[in-house]
Amino acid sequence: MNEERVPKYYQLKKEIIRKIEMEEYTPDGPIPSERELMEQHQVSRITVRKAIDELVVEGYLYKVQGKGTYVKTDEKSNDLFSLVSCTQAVRNMGMTPTKQVIVSQVLTTDKKRAKALNLTAADQVFQLGRVLYANEEPLNYTLTYLPMKLFPGLEKHDFGKESLYQVLGEEYHVNITKARRTVEAVLVKDEIAEYLDIEPGMPVILFGCTTYGEVNGQEQPVENFKCYYRTDKYKFYIDQVAL
Amino acid sequence: MNEERVPKYYQLKKEIIRKIEMEEYTPDGPIPSERELMEQHQVSRITVRKAIDELVVEGYLYKVQGKGTYVKTDEKSNDLFSLVSCTQAVRNMGMTPTKQVIVSQVLTTDKKRAKALNLTAADQVFQLGRVLYANEEPLNYTLTYLPMKLFPGLEKHDFGKESLYQVLGEEYHVNITKARRTVEAVLVKDEIAEYLDIEPGMPVILFGCTTYGEVNGQEQPVENFKCYYRTDKYKFYIDQVAL
Repeated sequence: MNEERVPKYYQLKKEIIRKIEMEEYTPDGPIPSERELMEQHQVSRITVRKAIDELVVEGYLYKVQGKGTYVKTDEKSNDLFSLVSCTQAVRNMGMTPTKQVIVSQVLTTDKKRAKALNLTAADQVFQLGRVLYANEEPLNYTLTYLPMKLFPGLEKHDFGKESLYQVLGEEYHVNITKARRTVEAVLVKDEIAEYLDIEPGMPVILFGCTTYGEVNGQEQPVENFKCYYRTDKYKFYIDQVAL
Repeated sequence: MNEERVPKYYQLKKEIIRKIEMEEYTPDGPIPSERELMEQHQVSRITVRKAIDELVVEGYLYKVQGKGTYVKTDEKSNDLFSLVSCTQAVRNMGMTPTKQVIVSQVLTTDKKRAKALNLTAADQVFQLGRVLYANEEPLNYTLTYLPMKLFPGLEKHDFGKESLYQVLGEEYHVNITKARRTVEAVLVKDEIAEYLDIEPGMPVILFGCTTYGEVNGQEQPVENFKCYYRTDKYKFYIDQVAL
């Protein structure tokens, strides 16, 4: 490609990527301000913003409201793929987990969910939607469904304070055995972007999951959830060992 | 929200989601054509397109060029998290894997990569960029870096035909021991969208990975890669068992 014909924002973008890769911009450190980038590269504010916005959605940089733009790093990631507890993963990162209940109600199930949970259309489910925060910053939004016939009275708990898995274990004697997750990248829209406090259209990881457990001596699906996970600031680690 | 004030495309979107969840639209089956949706819902083509486009980037639907729009399903997913071989994962899905080499060259390393691979700035790396196809449809683009001092002559292979891990094992006696992956959701741009044959701005999963192996009796980093994975059509499965 001829240098002359490459748009300015694109040249700036490649230059910022180069500096990240050479570690001239420190991992997790700030990049220069908009004004500094304008001066250093003799370009307009629009050009700087376009370059930075693209580098944010492409996973090179992240923004901190009122502070600036930072280099996304591999260092401060967390071990996502624990079977149950995101709350514990937040603690492992040295941060304080809190939860906010968005929805908590008993419903009749839809067909897709009924199938995942081995239910009939007449069965009821407990729907629980919660935002998980790490140091008061939203990390994920999980919307989960559990069969009411297995867990009568589940809706009476305050899951802003109580742990779902702890209640399942202690009150209903559920022993979690396995989980099947699907993973995909999607754009967040509408209310979920709002819950996560990010701009609509940002890419997030969507997990779909059916968790199985032993209840009354039988292994069966105990919950089916969707979880929208921000990765604009933290990536995840998965460690694997060859068998 | 007052029904009157909800935009038409948004009402249509919610209606399509409802039909997916009730399985009125069959998993992996086609939804009605643009024209049919326009007639059924008495809306314009623009409205239908906006609703469908959002459902595509949000992970509910996928498009097949020249054929139509389909319901994304959990069924035809693959087991991504094998330690080494995406090629094998494609075969497990009953499809034929092929690879195309985009870049294959020897370079001096940048600082970020040098750190990941335990190299100095003077060391050279082999850079290999490949697209993996499943039945001639692009699935992922991987750009990997390997230390030349561990693998002299590596650049002479044709990795459009040969398996990288097989060459490492057979020719260089590497025994892969572990891998550390990071996972995030990003938007693809520019040439990577082109390699993957998707529209720029689609969300994809980005894996960063350092793979370790035993070489000359010592465990060390053997490669560092970035892999951009389409999830617009297939999701991934991760099966987990409680320990």
